[in-house]
Amino acid sequence: MIIIKIGGGSEIHWEYIAQNLKRFTNKNKVVIVHGASTLRDSIGNKLNVHTQTVVSPSGISSVYTDDKALEVFLMAYAGVANKTIVAQLLKHAIPAVGLTGVDGKLWTARAKPDLFVKEGNKVRLLRNNHTGRVETVNASLLKSILDEGYVPVITAPAITESGNIVNTDNDWATAVTAGALHAQSILYLFEAAGLLKDFSDPNSVISHIDKHALQLYFPHAQGRMKKKLLGAQEAFKRGVKQIYFGDGRIKNPIDSALSGNGTIIS
Amino acid sequence: MIIIKIGGGSEIHWEYIAQNLKRFTNKNKVVIVHGASTLRDSIGNKLNVHTQTVVSPSGISSVYTDDKALEVFLMAYAGVANKTIVAQLLKHAIPAVGLTGVDGKLWTARAKPDLFVKEGNKVRLLRNNHTGRVETVNASLLKSILDEGYVPVITAPAITESGNIVNTDNDWATAVTAGALHAQSILYLFEAAGLLKDFSDPNSVISHIDKHALQLYFPHAQGRMKKKLLGAQEAFKRGVKQIYFGDGRIKNPIDSALSGNGTIIS
Repeated sequence: MIIIKIGGGSEIHWEYIAQNLKRFTNKNKVVIVHGASTLRDSIGNKLNVHTQTVVSPSGISSVYTDDKALEVFLMAYAGVANKTIVAQLLKHAIPAVGLTGVDGKLWTARAKPDLFVKEGNKVRLLRNNHTGRVETVNASLLKSILDEGYVPVITAPAITESGNIVNTDNDWATAVTAGALHAQSILYLFEAAGLLKDFSDPNSVISHIDKHALQLYFPHAQGRMKKKLLGAQEAFKRGVKQIYFGDGRIKNPIDSALSGNGTIIS
Repeated sequence: MIIIKIGGGSEIHWEYIAQNLKRFTNKNKVVIVHGASTLRDSIGNKLNVHTQTVVSPSGISSVYTDDKALEVFLMAYAGVANKTIVAQLLKHAIPAVGLTGVDGKLWTARAKPDLFVKEGNKVRLLRNNHTGRVETVNASLLKSILDEGYVPVITAPAITESGNIVNTDNDWATAVTAGALHAQSILYLFEAAGLLKDFSDPNSVISHIDKHALQLYFPHAQGRMKKKLLGAQEAFKRGVKQIYFGDGRIKNPIDSALSGNGTIIS
């Protein structure tokens, strides 16, 4: 069993992924997790609902998801992206079933507390932040879908124990899902050839990282890549054996990453 | 087994439905199908994507779903409506799982042919109309989800055999789904007390219709209600025993309709 997490960037080549996946799913049980950040931004722009980044009094920035932002999130992730991806996989005869973390409480998240934010010299309490971190996975629902021969295609949002929909970090949720399914491997496909030693040099791929030394590589990780490393760290804690970072823009992206052309953490 | 189709109007009271459903699902296997027409129109208005009605040379009007309209459809039906409904049911401890007709080819539709439309004195061919009618249902996927104790919450769009996403009539799809699952009953909940003898008089509910005389009632059916009667007619052909039309705006909407307060066709 492998979990393949595919980024939401505009250069991700879903046709190549589907072609490779068709062969790959003949021999392997696969769960797909996907993002949709580019699509969310594009729909948000059209609706004039922009990603709001807020800064805590201690200087840490985070995304604030209000009612309108959550609605745009649902449109992009659960609506357009998930169903378009499912249809594209079905075209290649991959029996895909799309789900969000909401369905059957697939991803139960703990809601983040109300945010204290700094605005100039003032600190104010920002309520109604629909964000949470996935803590538990409804593995039995996933297993029953897998046992019927389907390929689950999962995306955020998640849901809290009390039934509120929350935006959540897909990379973290991928790690928790891998643990719950006792998956041996995770493959993250994104818009780079692997984890880069030098962010500005696309050829500086780090080919292998010892999982015990993962902490040393955090300085090399920029932006979203840091979240992936945090996800990787959590996945190892939860029993995953190896994690692959590979290029989601190339032909045969899965075979390529698994054969060592990206970054392997083990 | 009963299929409950719930309309997409703004007056549908989902909180009342969820309360009633919680008791009802303790004793009955249920599949939910829902619409989202009001939400689709509201999102479409914000994005300046309006429902396009076209007229054939013989004078029959139909909806034209181009790429943009299909995207809005996915945002509203698969994205916001489906996941909001699933979360609301989960709040009432109803184990809901949201699906569209796309997932696992749940609803396979035959695409409608290209449309000839009349514009003034000219007739032109309108291609790329993403619309179809559901012909087959992936009953085994639904059964496996039902067998695990979940309540499937389904909505359009559907998918063609070759993997294209198509807008589809939910009422018709409900009938085909009922047939595929050998359901005894369908309950349609909408924004009226039942089928009305006089559209302008909300108290003129027709309490019983003989299923063999259904054709006689078509003149009483206005707008969307005609589609529901066509759906009902198809459902009887496919083995359904009784069909209920009930008010989706009141307390205990399911109990009320099943006990005869709306229209019963049998």
